[in-house]
Amino acid sequence: MSLRIIATGGTFDKHYDPLTGNLVFRDSVLPAALARARITEPLQVDTLLALDSLDMNEGHRQQIREACERSAEQHIVIVHGTDTMRETAQVLGHAALPKTIVLTGAMVPYLIDESDALFNLGFACACAKLCGHGVFIAMNGRVFAWNDVQKNRAAGIFENAR
Amino acid sequence: MSLRIIATGGTFDKHYDPLTGNLVFRDSVLPAALARARITEPLQVDTLLALDSLDMNEGHRQQIREACERSAEQHIVIVHGTDTMRETAQVLGHAALPKTIVLTGAMVPYLIDESDALFNLGFACACAKLCGHGVFIAMNGRVFAWNDVQKNRAAGIFENAR
Amino acid sequence: MSLRIIATGGTFDKHYDPLTGNLVFRDSVLPAALARARITEPLQVDTLLALDSLDMNEGHRQQIREACERSAEQHIVIVHGTDTMRETAQVLGHAALPKTIVLTGAMVPYLIDESDALFNLGFACACAKLCGHGVFIAMNGRVFAWNDVQKNRAAGIFENAR
Amino acid sequence: MSLRIIATGGTFDKHYDPLTGNLVFRDSVLPAALARARITEPLQVDTLLALDSLDMNEGHRQQIREACERSAEQHIVIVHGTDTMRETAQVLGHAALPKTIVLTGAMVPYLIDESDALFNLGFACACAKLCGHGVFIAMNGRVFAWNDVQKNRAAGIFENAR
Repeated sequence: MSLRIIATGGTFDKHYDPLTGNLVFRDSVLPAALARARITEPLQVDTLLALDSLDMNEGHRQQIREACERSAEQHIVIVHGTDTMRETAQVLGHAALPKTIVLTGAMVPYLIDESDALFNLGFACACAKLCGHGVFIAMNGRVFAWNDVQKNRAAGIFENAR
Repeated sequence: MSLRIIATGGTFDKHYDPLTGNLVFRDSVLPAALARARITEPLQVDTLLALDSLDMNEGHRQQIREACERSAEQHIVIVHGTDTMRETAQVLGHAALPKTIVLTGAMVPYLIDESDALFNLGFACACAKLCGHGVFIAMNGRVFAWNDVQKNRAAGIFENAR
Repeated sequence: MSLRIIATGGTFDKHYDPLTGNLVFRDSVLPAALARARITEPLQVDTLLALDSLDMNEGHRQQIREACERSAEQHIVIVHGTDTMRETAQVLGHAALPKTIVLTGAMVPYLIDESDALFNLGFACACAKLCGHGVFIAMNGRVFAWNDVQKNRAAGIFENAR
Repeated sequence: MSLRIIATGGTFDKHYDPLTGNLVFRDSVLPAALARARITEPLQVDTLLALDSLDMNEGHRQQIREACERSAEQHIVIVHGTDTMRETAQVLGHAALPKTIVLTGAMVPYLIDESDALFNLGFACACAKLCGHGVFIAMNGRVFAWNDVQKNRAAGIFENAR
């Protein structure tokens, strides 16, 4: 059962820029993170976008939808910023593709001490294999359906919307 | 849906001893690893054993079985050495408890650079939530039934036994 | 020969805030960094300030000067932001204390992958032991007198001013 | 003032082998460690040996002496195992080269969490620049002359021999 991982940016993939002191995007950390995971099955990595999810617009979300549509793999993990993960999940949910699509991300960048990124990536890969067709958000040990999830920004967690 | 994590030792949990240059057991890294995962649901951590799995005997495996039996949580992740993970899975599989039990571990200790431990832990937690009752081994992006898995030591991977 | 380490903040000591996505100050990382260094001699750690050095004013620099004056230890390392490290060094240089004072910092925070912080801290501790009385800036393998140094911000390095 | 760094192996440079569970030598970590240090001056890195220092014999120590002799750089850091660091320092001390030679190493490998390696490397680089001609051991915040040092193995520290 082969998996496709689509990088779109977000906190997960941020790097520190020593010249400006800002967190920025460079080459995705996903190939390194997945090498570390020692995954033995076939795996496609697609570095589609490198954006803070607050900077994503409808065009970007359509790009993500198209990448899911044309994916030969039926099991897809999307690494995405947390702030508008729900909005992208809704676009994908309404598309109703016959695939299992799991959005994940991180509260702390992969390259920063004590990051949750690798845990979330592992958790999301299992969800992509085990959940049925549909669109899900998998963060910090929980999995949510695309139409019943919201980010609680004050607490820094995802929770049911209803 | 609350989870129980049972530490039994294994590569996942090894520390470096600066005085002898050996890899040894100390306090489990699991509480730190789980804090990093930022899990928001209730979680029980049970540091049952701290053994290299080659040093486990039938008595130890019965202790693990008893810990699973008395667990109030139905979803259980066991962190275990890889060398005899299959043997413990068989003991648990024959016990046929009405619970979802997932054994995981690491090829590189959590405290060593480029460890797969956190990925495997995330992957195993999702398996424990999403698989039905039964006993599974979840390692490096794959999940196996307890009675169809073996470790290929030359390659350092788990694979189907049949 | 005992050493005093004075934390004042700066890039070296920045933490990632998962709720805002900003780099902020919390408890200093210096006690952890120094434990890791396995220093066997007596060591005083003084967490005086926690500031971005662009936010330091003359009052803060006088606080640092006073901390150096009242230090019972003659060998002092100050962990400081790089942007105004030179300005603080000048205040201390003009004070002409009979002590060896070495300012250091980091281009990448201690808690971020590939940080230079621990290297610089080791380098600065040796400078504080081996240089004569005076005020120095020690960064990225070079040591400068307080009155012949400048930060080249475009290149992210310290260099001679003359 | 340019520096030569000579790798000879030792705890500093050990890697974890996932197939055997042993700590072994592979490509030296020194190029990565030095890139991280962001050193701006010219630097020569010489990966001469990759040995546990308990496996070093007189021939190996003569190879290290010859590498120091032919070094165009007068300031030399040797990364070495701690167990026979003193013996190599004595060979180099008796050679009485007109150079500053500093041996350093680590109590915990560079690639393992909480390693002292990068601190020691920074400390040793400063010693190589600031000490006069001679042979020194620099470990964990202290610098020793080659003929007045011993490793206290029970405590895991270096101390004066007299």
